[in-house]
Amino acid sequence: MKNCISIGLLGLGTVGSGVVKIVEAHQDRLAHQIGCSVEVKKVLVKNLEKERAITIHKDLLTTDATEILDDADVDVVVEVMGGIEDARRYILHALRNKKHVVTANKDLMALYGTELLRVANENKCDLFYEASVAGGIPIIRSLVDGLAADRVTKLMGIVNGTTNFILTKMSNEGRPYEDVLKEAQELGFAESDPTSDVEGLDAARKMTILSKLGFSMDVELEDVQVRGISSVSAEDIDYARYFGYTMKLIGYAKRSENRIEVSVGPTLISHSHPLASVSNEFNAVYVYGEAVGETMFYGPGAGSLPTATAIVSDLVAVMKNMRLGVNGTSAVLPQYPKELKDDHEIHFKSFFRFTVQDQLGSFAKITSLFTECDISFEKIIQVPLKHQGLAEIILVTHQASSAAFKKVIRDLEASDVVDEVRSYYRIAGEE
Amino acid sequence: MKNCISIGLLGLGTVGSGVVKIVEAHQDRLAHQIGCSVEVKKVLVKNLEKERAITIHKDLLTTDATEILDDADVDVVVEVMGGIEDARRYILHALRNKKHVVTANKDLMALYGTELLRVANENKCDLFYEASVAGGIPIIRSLVDGLAADRVTKLMGIVNGTTNFILTKMSNEGRPYEDVLKEAQELGFAESDPTSDVEGLDAARKMTILSKLGFSMDVELEDVQVRGISSVSAEDIDYARYFGYTMKLIGYAKRSENRIEVSVGPTLISHSHPLASVSNEFNAVYVYGEAVGETMFYGPGAGSLPTATAIVSDLVAVMKNMRLGVNGTSAVLPQYPKELKDDHEIHFKSFFRFTVQDQLGSFAKITSLFTECDISFEKIIQVPLKHQGLAEIILVTHQASSAAFKKVIRDLEASDVVDEVRSYYRIAGEE
Repeated sequence: MKNCISIGLLGLGTVGSGVVKIVEAHQDRLAHQIGCSVEVKKVLVKNLEKERAITIHKDLLTTDATEILDDADVDVVVEVMGGIEDARRYILHALRNKKHVVTANKDLMALYGTELLRVANENKCDLFYEASVAGGIPIIRSLVDGLAADRVTKLMGIVNGTTNFILTKMSNEGRPYEDVLKEAQELGFAESDPTSDVEGLDAARKMTILSKLGFSMDVELEDVQVRGISSVSAEDIDYARYFGYTMKLIGYAKRSENRIEVSVGPTLISHSHPLASVSNEFNAVYVYGEAVGETMFYGPGAGSLPTATAIVSDLVAVMKNMRLGVNGTSAVLPQYPKELKDDHEIHFKSFFRFTVQDQLGSFAKITSLFTECDISFEKIIQVPLKHQGLAEIILVTHQASSAAFKKVIRDLEASDVVDEVRSYYRIAGEE
Repeated sequence: MKNCISIGLLGLGTVGSGVVKIVEAHQDRLAHQIGCSVEVKKVLVKNLEKERAITIHKDLLTTDATEILDDADVDVVVEVMGGIEDARRYILHALRNKKHVVTANKDLMALYGTELLRVANENKCDLFYEASVAGGIPIIRSLVDGLAADRVTKLMGIVNGTTNFILTKMSNEGRPYEDVLKEAQELGFAESDPTSDVEGLDAARKMTILSKLGFSMDVELEDVQVRGISSVSAEDIDYARYFGYTMKLIGYAKRSENRIEVSVGPTLISHSHPLASVSNEFNAVYVYGEAVGETMFYGPGAGSLPTATAIVSDLVAVMKNMRLGVNGTSAVLPQYPKELKDDHEIHFKSFFRFTVQDQLGSFAKITSLFTECDISFEKIIQVPLKHQGLAEIILVTHQASSAAFKKVIRDLEASDVVDEVRSYYRIAGEE
């Protein structure tokens, strides 16, 4: 058994620097926990001369990945460089050289997670990725541990800080989307190109990772039905609040028997649901397990310190496994064949807002459109918009199938009494 | 290294039976995780003939604890018998015989935790107790793991399901305390003698355990300032809601520099605080760490399945440590001297409700009483109670010291314009 475990680091940005700092500052505690010492042996960087936020010996830096990946002394590779193609190539290379890997790379794990985990298993190596989803929340570990003695039936997550920040501001201040997005960009909570966040792609990647693990099926990114928040209006949020709901971008994954659904979209949840209070840039994941029931994990979704802390936790787990000689057993590969529900099997309540001609018979016509689709109403209000000769109808339905909702939207749009279907949202957390 | 790890179980109630069931059902997975097999070798029961919910071989049962505690083959003792004196004696006996211990015993850990952990360390044994606080929430492990790379500054917990159930019902249905308590007893959510729950003692025991761990100081039960919920009225809850607050029994522990405060009491928290949505019998613990920031763990506080699941997680950790040869290092003994804040160092906002003589000058007199104690108002309403010649004043203060609040209550009670101080609550979560 080795007396010292060597780490090779790919990348030395804020997260990588945080990892170096924590490993150095907690040497004693790490040695205490795992029974041997730990050193950072080599760090891959793009530029040897760049000024760093941390003090690190020049000899530790390299621009040649093979100095880490082919070094027989390196036991664990920590990938914090980001990007997809190079990161994937390096990780595969490391695993084939029997090195354990810890990564914070969500995009990579969403796209190539199953392949990477399979190669890890083939090489009896660990591949840990706690930091890839909601850095400050130990959700991956909780799902893996939970799986040992429970079965997950539902996952609901607020897993994108940018959109949660925007929706919180819109809700609290009644301001329009564009305005709040601009502020979020100025504050650094949104990228200058915010597409991946606001269109739900980032959340979809995280839900791919979580649902794959939770259901033990090979869920892929294209299995996730995705809708972003860019069309959400301050009026929608106001009417939703009137009916008792908060607007959130929710990642939703549910198993019924052995068939699953995974989606990401702007969703209404009851004010009293624990997810409704998750505000600003915070993240939370709600897990329903057969034995344990409902649990929720809440915390910061990003940030260099929480992310680096998650990576060090993974490192400790890898190193404990090394000393136990049980590496390569914790990478849980999908155990069940993936079966996706179709639109007739997915049921939920919905919120609708649309305008109709303010004339006799309009309301009756609308009612019959919904009835024909087997959708009934739970709550409804009608507001005259006198000067336009229109009325606005806002309603909440009872449960119906996704197929029924799609049909009624088509029917509404085709109807001559309907002026405009302004918005339509899924309601979750009451099923 | 042994090929099989043997467990001795003290107690075979619902939790103990759950442990046996999970260990049997998950043999393969446990072997996979720890690299060797696991067996339940002996179970201490009171009555050998009693009908059991599970099928278990008669030969495994014993009424003699020494058959477990003195059996050199037993590696780990799981204590799920409850009570204090016998449990303490057996656990000390087990530790001195170099057996690792997993316990679900909150009362024991609150009273004798430091002693037991010290003896565990002296004997290089593990003593794990995840199931003792909020069975369905991995909070002990999160605090221990978190401590490796972070420093806890504040803990807020809803750690008693009975009182949370009662307060939730009172809030939602506007019903009085006695009425809801009776229903809770009928539903099995409250004991026939509910004192330990409703007077805050159960929550205080859990906060003793959590704050000892979080602050790494030897916090004792008598350090916790405790107040129960039996005097909370439906009117208090209504007025609090009007001001934007939800009433919860909150365990509150805070460190400022190296001095700490720990309390349990009915507390108002903002509707938007994540703890405000923790309803019914659910528990949650909010943790503030210097590096990670705010995290919250939410889940069922009790129940035989969640508790048994937590015990099995602890068992896996013990068994991994056995194979690593690092037992006895994870029991974190208090590292810092305990320093308790005095009343002048504890600051918070408060809610007051009291009646005054409805006459000229009353309000000015009240204002000057508060001003003299250096307490200023944030919000105030006055409601005339005409037929009694009284007015009710309900107010929320700015931050002031606990000493100031104690003084102003004495002054109010002594004042001739005050009829009755009806209620007084701490406000938390905004500091």
